[in-house]
Amino acid sequence: MSLFLDAARGADTQQAPVWIMRQAGRYLPEYRALKERYSFWELCRTPELVLEITLQPIRRFGFDAAILFSDIMTPLPPMGVEIDFSPGPVFRNPLRTEAQIDALRLPTQEEIAPFVVDAVHLIRSEANVPLIGFAGAPLTLATYMVQGGGSKDYATFRQFLRQVPEGAHRLLEALTEVTIRYLRAQVEAGVQAVQLFDSWAGLHDANTYREFSKPYNRRVFEALAESGVPRIYLAVNSLHLYDEITELPCEVVSVDWRVPLSTVRELLPSKTLQGNLDPANLLAPEEHLLREVDRVLLEGLGGPHIFNLGHGIFPQTDPDNVERLVERVRAFDRLRAEGKP
Amino acid sequence: MSLFLDAARGADTQQAPVWIMRQAGRYLPEYRALKERYSFWELCRTPELVLEITLQPIRRFGFDAAILFSDIMTPLPPMGVEIDFSPGPVFRNPLRTEAQIDALRLPTQEEIAPFVVDAVHLIRSEANVPLIGFAGAPLTLATYMVQGGGSKDYATFRQFLRQVPEGAHRLLEALTEVTIRYLRAQVEAGVQAVQLFDSWAGLHDANTYREFSKPYNRRVFEALAESGVPRIYLAVNSLHLYDEITELPCEVVSVDWRVPLSTVRELLPSKTLQGNLDPANLLAPEEHLLREVDRVLLEGLGGPHIFNLGHGIFPQTDPDNVERLVERVRAFDRLRAEGKP
Repeated sequence: MSLFLDAARGADTQQAPVWIMRQAGRYLPEYRALKERYSFWELCRTPELVLEITLQPIRRFGFDAAILFSDIMTPLPPMGVEIDFSPGPVFRNPLRTEAQIDALRLPTQEEIAPFVVDAVHLIRSEANVPLIGFAGAPLTLATYMVQGGGSKDYATFRQFLRQVPEGAHRLLEALTEVTIRYLRAQVEAGVQAVQLFDSWAGLHDANTYREFSKPYNRRVFEALAESGVPRIYLAVNSLHLYDEITELPCEVVSVDWRVPLSTVRELLPSKTLQGNLDPANLLAPEEHLLREVDRVLLEGLGGPHIFNLGHGIFPQTDPDNVERLVERVRAFDRLRAEGKP
Repeated sequence: MSLFLDAARGADTQQAPVWIMRQAGRYLPEYRALKERYSFWELCRTPELVLEITLQPIRRFGFDAAILFSDIMTPLPPMGVEIDFSPGPVFRNPLRTEAQIDALRLPTQEEIAPFVVDAVHLIRSEANVPLIGFAGAPLTLATYMVQGGGSKDYATFRQFLRQVPEGAHRLLEALTEVTIRYLRAQVEAGVQAVQLFDSWAGLHDANTYREFSKPYNRRVFEALAESGVPRIYLAVNSLHLYDEITELPCEVVSVDWRVPLSTVRELLPSKTLQGNLDPANLLAPEEHLLREVDRVLLEGLGGPHIFNLGHGIFPQTDPDNVERLVERVRAFDRLRAEGKP
């Protein structure tokens, strides 16, 4: 059995399993060496490279789970959406009209990302830890597609939700269907858990979330229910949405660094909590880092906990600090800390 | 007496006073006309232009308060810090070392911004509504000074807090002293309320906030206590910090759009609440806008309320929508809505 899958399924494990968001990426010199030779899309679309990058942090640190190296934008080009990375995503034709939305294609499960399916097969044949697949949540994908790229406040998208709500719902319907197909393809290829990244949900108040995000997330998760893989939901900056998030049919909620896990435990009593070290603490002196790791471990007691960062690791992080983090998490006996025999 | 000052001092007024963040600025054609002729620093540093821009939205909409047209960076150049606007602030020499911090100047109250003092005199002689002065909170100013400008995650600053905490405290000490002097200069010149903008406080967990923000905000507010002017604190994205913010010696807390005022009322029972319409609703159709204005008015009942946005108005806002907002707020009888005679 697997520590990660046990905790994801609700077991209060003796050790907290540990992996970290963006563990396969720019803070690793072995990743940067590949990045010099290939474009970001080439890295994402070449199964052998996806295999290599996905496993780099597993070899180095022995994390309890691997996460597919990919990008949440992956299913969009097959819908007819052109994206460049420079380095953030830039959409050549941001969606602004209902005609553009109605012109989007709905690719079949097989069409969306055959290179991801191939990569999952390769990884499963080599990896000795569970593999997490992922996708962007419909609202978050729509945010980028309408805004046209990253933004400070996503004002164009927030205006669109209010000016063209029916178009927004049609867009979210299409994205929900494609996301379900994409995640099904990943699960059928062998991923053992899935994480839905709703990175921009926290931009909205609860009413807006209830209308434009929650029902679509629910449908994505429900479509995966019978596969039996644990489902992880991530929404940054979403303390004000936990009354809604607690109702989503997922096993795990990934928590950002702002709120102690012990506080979130009361708001999400039925979920495994994943998180939530501030990634800035990996840029701190060792003593500070270890103190903060201990704090997260203690705050994570009282229920199932997967140790992770509260946000993606910063590219300037020294990999040695990640090694210290992993050692510290491994050395912590959760049952003893809870006073259990 | 003034509706705004009454509410700021804790009166549950019959009408909610209304002003909006960035009410003097880019959404107004009369502001844009001036912006074409002058640089941003010229606009901020010429008392007659500050007067004109500060009063533009008062003439147009009859807001219940004017806010000084200025920028939170104003007191930094007299400390020896060089800043360009392009259009966001860019620091020529970001602070990274303790030597740089120790080399900062502490300008006298008179040196900091004589043009602001002159502008306040001019505005007070012309305006028929209270004038709000403001400053950046020490932590937020330090965020920009170390990072060197705007950023997605302010990783350099968050690393600095952890790597050089004593230097950070010396920087925050200096900024606290300069902020006190700057706000005293404004109050002595005639501003009738002050708002402290801690725009980036919400980036941090409560422990970090308690160490690096709260004590300095407290000192700024305490230094203004005997002046008797109402003190307003703004921290975006700070639901997780309200247990700390409730203890700050200020009369008013400005609330962002994410959380209903009725929820915040329970967390900040002794404060006047200011806010919190999502500025995106000013980009919506009229019916949607008015529904959301009504919601904020209703959620604001049960204690003193100053109607405002939850964040600065977007530059693409149609001024006509602001007029509709003001009319709607004016037409709402808070006492009747609460069932009082």
